[in-house]
Amino acid sequence: MRLLVSESEIERRQKKLKDNAAEMDITATILFNTTNIFYLTNFKFIQTERPMALIMVDDKMTFLVPRMEKERVNYCLPEAKTEVYPEYPGKKHPMEYLKEFLKKLNLQKEKIGVDSDGAPGSYGYEGPAISEMLPDSEIVNISDIISDMMIIKSEEEISLIRESAKWANLAMRLLKEYTEPGLTENEISQKASLDATLSLVKTYGEKDKDFSGIASGVYAGFRGQIGEHSFYPHSLTTNAIIKEGDVLGTGAGPCIGGYHSELERTFIVGKPTAKQGKYFDLMCNMQEIVFQKIKPGIKCSDVDDEVTQFFKENDLTDYWMHHTGHSIGLQGHEPPFLDTGDETEIKPGMLFTVEPGIYIPEMGGFRHSDTIVITENGMEQLTFYPRDIKSCTIQL
Amino acid sequence: MRLLVSESEIERRQKKLKDNAAEMDITATILFNTTNIFYLTNFKFIQTERPMALIMVDDKMTFLVPRMEKERVNYCLPEAKTEVYPEYPGKKHPMEYLKEFLKKLNLQKEKIGVDSDGAPGSYGYEGPAISEMLPDSEIVNISDIISDMMIIKSEEEISLIRESAKWANLAMRLLKEYTEPGLTENEISQKASLDATLSLVKTYGEKDKDFSGIASGVYAGFRGQIGEHSFYPHSLTTNAIIKEGDVLGTGAGPCIGGYHSELERTFIVGKPTAKQGKYFDLMCNMQEIVFQKIKPGIKCSDVDDEVTQFFKENDLTDYWMHHTGHSIGLQGHEPPFLDTGDETEIKPGMLFTVEPGIYIPEMGGFRHSDTIVITENGMEQLTFYPRDIKSCTIQL
Repeated sequence: MRLLVSESEIERRQKKLKDNAAEMDITATILFNTTNIFYLTNFKFIQTERPMALIMVDDKMTFLVPRMEKERVNYCLPEAKTEVYPEYPGKKHPMEYLKEFLKKLNLQKEKIGVDSDGAPGSYGYEGPAISEMLPDSEIVNISDIISDMMIIKSEEEISLIRESAKWANLAMRLLKEYTEPGLTENEISQKASLDATLSLVKTYGEKDKDFSGIASGVYAGFRGQIGEHSFYPHSLTTNAIIKEGDVLGTGAGPCIGGYHSELERTFIVGKPTAKQGKYFDLMCNMQEIVFQKIKPGIKCSDVDDEVTQFFKENDLTDYWMHHTGHSIGLQGHEPPFLDTGDETEIKPGMLFTVEPGIYIPEMGGFRHSDTIVITENGMEQLTFYPRDIKSCTIQL
Repeated sequence: MRLLVSESEIERRQKKLKDNAAEMDITATILFNTTNIFYLTNFKFIQTERPMALIMVDDKMTFLVPRMEKERVNYCLPEAKTEVYPEYPGKKHPMEYLKEFLKKLNLQKEKIGVDSDGAPGSYGYEGPAISEMLPDSEIVNISDIISDMMIIKSEEEISLIRESAKWANLAMRLLKEYTEPGLTENEISQKASLDATLSLVKTYGEKDKDFSGIASGVYAGFRGQIGEHSFYPHSLTTNAIIKEGDVLGTGAGPCIGGYHSELERTFIVGKPTAKQGKYFDLMCNMQEIVFQKIKPGIKCSDVDDEVTQFFKENDLTDYWMHHTGHSIGLQGHEPPFLDTGDETEIKPGMLFTVEPGIYIPEMGGFRHSDTIVITENGMEQLTFYPRDIKSCTIQL
């Protein structure tokens, strides 16, 4: 099984971006963002202080790279052209190399599309804006074109996310199996992650090319959402010890070919109390409402509004903390959002997490998250770990 | 042992920033960057589409947070004030809440220091610049003040990095112990990481507060730098199988209290060949040259120039790929850089990685990385795994 989208898919993406740029009379496109570059080339790199750029002119693509990435570009993409600067900061700024390259191509007075006006300022990088560097050019931000392209997922993208959901399921099962009172979150999480990763690795065998997302393997864990701390949706508490009666927030999943799924389950340690059972079921009901309602033609806000209505009708508003979900793909969170303020029309091929949550002080948070894809008539659930309370109870 | 810098250190940082701002006649400071906010408050959060901001006016600090982070701010910082917006995108944009808050404080016509002109565009966030929102104010970017403060590390910061270096050493030893031909990088790396993390966790016991950096534990691994792939300094090759004769690029370390150390070692699988031994020793010599030369009063570029000179004198220039090192702290790479283009004067309390590398096509990369701190007269090495070839050979 190939764990990257195909070259023909990459070509379709490039063509679409070029067609869009051509309509805007854009002569050249310069991308700096690692996710955008990966989306358009399947080339992934570690962003440091050293800027990298993808320059697209007509049918030619050139990577501006530091010396240390030169051969790796061609290891991954044998045909790719590179323009190499030694290092950052360097005696001559990397953007000077970019400027000279653009001048050589006679682009200094053209309309140029960029995904940001200069390289991102990561790890202390400082540099000029493209618009300062080429004052006679017209610089247009075209990042919306790429993010719009990303919103509707192709069959290939969905199949990578489907694959991610399978391994997420294995990791989640192992996490549940290994969870018991007296252990710390690290012991459980790291053992489940290790075993799931080794299964993944043994399944796919040796790979000698970059195929993004296997190296770090499959993760399963709690991220501090243990007992009372599960009240905090983005808890960062560390190393808590699991106790009987705890509500646990869990998450699992690998990135496959660059693509994420999201699987989260609320677990209860030991027999759930009546109150725990009540909030657990209410949360499951809200997910079910979304599964029934979501379909092409309605707006993202319609979905979140329906959930908000349920919160009101059930006197839960005090326990509301966040929107119903977000899109997902090359990034863990992507627009559009299942949020009262997002009026994007829902269309087939969009992906969403469905994760309405109920947060009770001193008890904990109740939130499952499933990844779904919008179909012609409704939706399909890609993550498939059971959602009922029995399947989410750690038997003691 | 406390695994965060003390409150008095945080107060010193806040005072320094305020004093600097006062000198510039700045009335209020607004920070959006997670690292900057952590540096000034010990409060860490997961950056998503939801913007967060720290607003500092006189001696008052207020966090602008989404609903879901409200209680967590006070769990970590009981005294902290919050200004809460429900959610992003939301019916009303989070920056509207910020604007109203600033107007309530009568700041709309003042000089305001920011670390960026608006919240960062992560996960599809879109929003206005502060300068657009408050057209009558004067917006000044003060991020340089904070990055300058970060350059010289305090005793407390150095002690956290020293602690990180110890666990890095354990993880590196385990990685070496577990490495053998026939295994994949994931098997070795995840087992070493798990065992080192469990030791860390058992050493510190249960912690119920966020103390950043234990949750993810101690990492040790190869990041694809196996055999020929170690030729690529930022290899992302996955799941390669270790073979006799391989050159391995390795790295290990946890983040402690938010602070990183960097420990990297080149390992040889089985008896090193004469060529492997030659490049290994040349690389060690270069590190030694830096250890001898680096001291207060000289420039960062002086160090890199000396290494470049060594490359030339030994006919190694074809095998050069990157600068000698970078600073390190709350981020894995920080300015200043041991780079020919960085003329920053070296001062006591600065930290650097020392990692000149030699990259031989079809053989691999030779690079140790050590974290050092500049002392009054020279430097002290914080990472201490042995650097000699015998200690770095996997005996078969």
